[in-house]
Amino acid sequence: MVKKLLLAFGLMSLLFPTLAFAADEATAPQLQSAIDAVWVMLAAILVIFMQAGFALLEAGSTRMKNAGHVAGKTILTFGLCAIAFWAVGFGFAFGDGNAFFGETGFFVTGLEDQAAAAFSSLSFSDVPIGIKFLFQLAFAGVSLAIAFGGFAERAKLPVYFIFGILFTVIIYPIVAHWVWGGGWLSKLGMQDFAGSTVVHLQGATAALVATILLKPRIGKYNKDKTPNLIPGHNQVLSVLGVIILWIGWFGFNPGSTLSAMGDGFFGYIALTTNMAAAAGAVAALIISWMYFGKADIPSMLNGVLAALVAITAACAFVDAWAAIVIGAVAGIITFFTAQWFEKAGIDDPIYAFSVHGIAGIWGTLSTGLFATPELSAKVGIGGAGLFYGGGFHQLGVQALGLAGALAFVLVLSFIILSILKATIGLRVTEEEEIIGLDLSEHGSYGYPEQMKKAAQNGVSV
Amino acid sequence: MVKKLLLAFGLMSLLFPTLAFAADEATAPQLQSAIDAVWVMLAAILVIFMQAGFALLEAGSTRMKNAGHVAGKTILTFGLCAIAFWAVGFGFAFGDGNAFFGETGFFVTGLEDQAAAAFSSLSFSDVPIGIKFLFQLAFAGVSLAIAFGGFAERAKLPVYFIFGILFTVIIYPIVAHWVWGGGWLSKLGMQDFAGSTVVHLQGATAALVATILLKPRIGKYNKDKTPNLIPGHNQVLSVLGVIILWIGWFGFNPGSTLSAMGDGFFGYIALTTNMAAAAGAVAALIISWMYFGKADIPSMLNGVLAALVAITAACAFVDAWAAIVIGAVAGIITFFTAQWFEKAGIDDPIYAFSVHGIAGIWGTLSTGLFATPELSAKVGIGGAGLFYGGGFHQLGVQALGLAGALAFVLVLSFIILSILKATIGLRVTEEEEIIGLDLSEHGSYGYPEQMKKAAQNGVSV
Amino acid sequence: MVKKLLLAFGLMSLLFPTLAFAADEATAPQLQSAIDAVWVMLAAILVIFMQAGFALLEAGSTRMKNAGHVAGKTILTFGLCAIAFWAVGFGFAFGDGNAFFGETGFFVTGLEDQAAAAFSSLSFSDVPIGIKFLFQLAFAGVSLAIAFGGFAERAKLPVYFIFGILFTVIIYPIVAHWVWGGGWLSKLGMQDFAGSTVVHLQGATAALVATILLKPRIGKYNKDKTPNLIPGHNQVLSVLGVIILWIGWFGFNPGSTLSAMGDGFFGYIALTTNMAAAAGAVAALIISWMYFGKADIPSMLNGVLAALVAITAACAFVDAWAAIVIGAVAGIITFFTAQWFEKAGIDDPIYAFSVHGIAGIWGTLSTGLFATPELSAKVGIGGAGLFYGGGFHQLGVQALGLAGALAFVLVLSFIILSILKATIGLRVTEEEEIIGLDLSEHGSYGYPEQMKKAAQNGVSV
Repeated sequence: MVKKLLLAFGLMSLLFPTLAFAADEATAPQLQSAIDAVWVMLAAILVIFMQAGFALLEAGSTRMKNAGHVAGKTILTFGLCAIAFWAVGFGFAFGDGNAFFGETGFFVTGLEDQAAAAFSSLSFSDVPIGIKFLFQLAFAGVSLAIAFGGFAERAKLPVYFIFGILFTVIIYPIVAHWVWGGGWLSKLGMQDFAGSTVVHLQGATAALVATILLKPRIGKYNKDKTPNLIPGHNQVLSVLGVIILWIGWFGFNPGSTLSAMGDGFFGYIALTTNMAAAAGAVAALIISWMYFGKADIPSMLNGVLAALVAITAACAFVDAWAAIVIGAVAGIITFFTAQWFEKAGIDDPIYAFSVHGIAGIWGTLSTGLFATPELSAKVGIGGAGLFYGGGFHQLGVQALGLAGALAFVLVLSFIILSILKATIGLRVTEEEEIIGLDLSEHGSYGYPEQMKKAAQNGVSV
Repeated sequence: MVKKLLLAFGLMSLLFPTLAFAADEATAPQLQSAIDAVWVMLAAILVIFMQAGFALLEAGSTRMKNAGHVAGKTILTFGLCAIAFWAVGFGFAFGDGNAFFGETGFFVTGLEDQAAAAFSSLSFSDVPIGIKFLFQLAFAGVSLAIAFGGFAERAKLPVYFIFGILFTVIIYPIVAHWVWGGGWLSKLGMQDFAGSTVVHLQGATAALVATILLKPRIGKYNKDKTPNLIPGHNQVLSVLGVIILWIGWFGFNPGSTLSAMGDGFFGYIALTTNMAAAAGAVAALIISWMYFGKADIPSMLNGVLAALVAITAACAFVDAWAAIVIGAVAGIITFFTAQWFEKAGIDDPIYAFSVHGIAGIWGTLSTGLFATPELSAKVGIGGAGLFYGGGFHQLGVQALGLAGALAFVLVLSFIILSILKATIGLRVTEEEEIIGLDLSEHGSYGYPEQMKKAAQNGVSV
Repeated sequence: MVKKLLLAFGLMSLLFPTLAFAADEATAPQLQSAIDAVWVMLAAILVIFMQAGFALLEAGSTRMKNAGHVAGKTILTFGLCAIAFWAVGFGFAFGDGNAFFGETGFFVTGLEDQAAAAFSSLSFSDVPIGIKFLFQLAFAGVSLAIAFGGFAERAKLPVYFIFGILFTVIIYPIVAHWVWGGGWLSKLGMQDFAGSTVVHLQGATAALVATILLKPRIGKYNKDKTPNLIPGHNQVLSVLGVIILWIGWFGFNPGSTLSAMGDGFFGYIALTTNMAAAAGAVAALIISWMYFGKADIPSMLNGVLAALVAITAACAFVDAWAAIVIGAVAGIITFFTAQWFEKAGIDDPIYAFSVHGIAGIWGTLSTGLFATPELSAKVGIGGAGLFYGGGFHQLGVQALGLAGALAFVLVLSFIILSILKATIGLRVTEEEEIIGLDLSEHGSYGYPEQMKKAAQNGVSV
């Protein structure tokens, strides 16, 4: 009755959301924009969900006394990253500017007028600017999460605050601008479809600098410099983390089309991405079995991730069989480099540099080897790789991009972290490290009942 | 060969699903309906996945002896809610009826003829009725999960059964009808885009009533009425829960457009939602650091959720910067109210009323402050807020809606729970509470090996 | 400035991905293909995510000493499955061929020319072949994960390698071809929409054969043949696993339309799927409460899954109320058969055969009872069930399909596993089983700190 009266008074249009924009029949560009928006929104959600993957992988790969800290700081740093990238980083990365950084588009409004005025490097896609921002923020957040792998189990909480903001504002967006924002590497035709270099190598390089400056964890090395194994406390959480990351990569790589059109090209990229991951899992497990005599699960998990990191650059440019090769090689290389770094005295608790750095380098080079002329033309970036008659040109471009990004991040991370080390200090005290960062940085255990029991039983933790 | 014969006999159309509906070229309305359906299905899935977020957050925030119970009852109560909402609740909420409740659409068939006859309040969207139902069911399920936060660690299992069904059938749908189903608050232009009041405040109010009637957990308060900390047993699970909830909110808020059209408006809402959450995380962590001297992780997690709760009403009506302000304020308010309620003798184990109630109130009011005239017009509900020249009108409408919903849920929850208390009783016995609800209600520990070891070692649990 | 020069030289098109395919206005078939692709990609991601659900459910349902192994092998076997299905299995299943297996489409390229030449059974859908492959791979992966439930806590790692590959290459694709690839059961009009038989019964039958050939775990049975309970170590992980599986089923069943068109039919299927799951949860919990005197959480989790398994065949053919009946009956049957198998001396640690086998049989038969003529016509497969005036015809077809699939998988699994048993052996040694498969197969505990403490405290694990 009331409803009928409302109808009679024509008030319906005031009552219900979205009614306003459903009046006329949608045009083809409007429909396409909506489809693309749904796809990239899904991709952005998957990539943001990767924060859960990193939190679990990293918490599972470290000790119980640090678990709450390791997981919790992931949310904190993504929060910081979101605000810093919103205010400054996104403009530096994708704003219109010069060959080195963007100069427009700070303090994202989410409105299309700012998008039209400031972000021409993203104008090829008809996705709403709010979703483009979230997608790119998710990438910056992944890069930062990788970087913080190198800080694990000994860095002070304020260091996460300060480095997190500076990485998001200064380091990450500059390299992103070079490759994706219309900068000098994009001009050269560097093929880094979803960021083996931009996202993974950058984060890994910062992690490497941090882990060297922080020095190894207490107990990691004996007096004769031989390493001890410090096993992570929960492989089930690590496995869950890796499956979430695998899933997240279906947003990371296929979503980087920023469109669902193009005759299903994003589906092709999903295929190459998945096959590389599968090959990395199997190859790394087998190589660990041959090398250790036991099929090592953490090595397999690293193999999955290394393969995904490697295929990130190449996913849109290579054949399905080549994706399998790239993934398998990544799994094997990462296994050996992880051993090598550990023996060389570099204590990288989550193997961030091996998994994201070495595999990122391999992946960036691999497209210079395996890129097909057809796929390069379809994407519209660069040309065929060495094995497909392209000679050394594309490989050279890839190497140049790698060298540039590596040098830039190495230098800036070193400067920032050295200043922090000289001022507030990077590392907690020895006592704090021994009791664990849950207590020292946050005042309570992540696992209070289990840690209390352990203490009562006199078990050293 | 066999295949060729089949083709020859024209049997193909009998063999493969969906062939029947791919014959003609799709029209623009059909395409739009499919896009909208995919988007809202994704959103519904994300919001249903929030049950995992609540299960983990709640289990992680309580003790080991109750963990299986806390997690397991989440699935049970969502199952009960689904059946009750399917049979009755959805009709009361969205069926055509009077200003207070719907009178049609019980026992959802999922067929469009029932939708056309019974649910005109949802007819603005071209999404299939099955998906509309699932989306709204997911919201009812979230509200119920919040309510049960107040029952944690001491309520009897039959109470979950009975209150769960009554909340789903009588309480939740009535308020939903008022605001979203064509009822009196929708007529007044109340701005509660995705349910700061409808979903969060409702659940939180029931939780508050429950936690008061149940009385504090054994050991929570000393004789001098000072509270003891009863820490949750697993911060990693809580962190994972919160990330899942953050992700789920990308369905909750942007999905409430019930459409992917509108020039990417759902992407705009995703942006404001995300920025609020980020601000809540950072603000709550800093305030806890200043107040406790330690950066408290559970406080930060509450800050994220409080910010998300607050932006739920306002997400479609406010600027991006305002979303950051709303989120940060929510994180800070919730921190202090959680302290205050604890000191006032109210033992709310998961802080349900602070996180979902206080922040729900703040969020509902905030749109009366920050709503812009442009966005209010775009959505087609209400008008500009106080800070945008709208005067006190919208703020007054928001306050009225809050008062109405709060009073209704308070009274009904109190009546239902008081009757239960007087008859079957709300609370397990003291012995049952001490041994834990895993054993008392379900007959086995959630962590049998760890609890057995603890018992063997004489550690009190 | 640099940007402006670039624009002037017309180099923009070289710089940004996907520009190439955004030139002309999209046609209706292109838009439809993109929508369908996004939907099925989402569905494929959800079904691949089910691997996390199985890893958690299975790890949570077994003991701490095996947890890393149980979770980790899930990733390994999905990796193996992906490569084997890519190379061979997909062609056997969906390639054009005879009534029993496909003969084309090996080594999937992901390019549409191979799809057009080799996969006419999938040509009814306009989704890109890369996504079709991933979706079907996800199904094969689920079937394999179910099969390995029967191997839990005692099979050797090499057995997972060999059986995993053979199941993916020989067993699964043959039955898939019969029902979905244009084989003899599809000709007969068998209604198995998303695979109660093809996916679940197959995996469960292999699990049954394995668990019988492997014999019970040490300590499962007393000398008088009465069973002991070997509780899983972590119900919270099991609950999370089941929620992920529930969510994943929104891809599994509704995604099997391979299209988002058809007037929202996929939304209807999501509705029936969800209602069945809800009914299964409630029914199984109540029946366990009546039978054990306690509301058993693992029984409820099995009830959810059994209901989802049962509705998998019937989801597209039955009314919403029938879905509730099918789900509730599945929850109850599975509860009793799980008891029965345990008492009969069959130690099926994850209840794989009861949950996926018995419920798969019930689900496949149920559509022969409840299928409506309207929905059968809409899907274009089979006809009305017994209760809707279709007589015994459809029920007979369903029973024939069940018998065929069951016999085939039983015989092949028995042959393969018997050969393995006679050669390399299926089972680890008694000492290895007692110390746990984490140590025996992988060389390190999944929970090293907790297991070490347990050992130090002299607690048997």
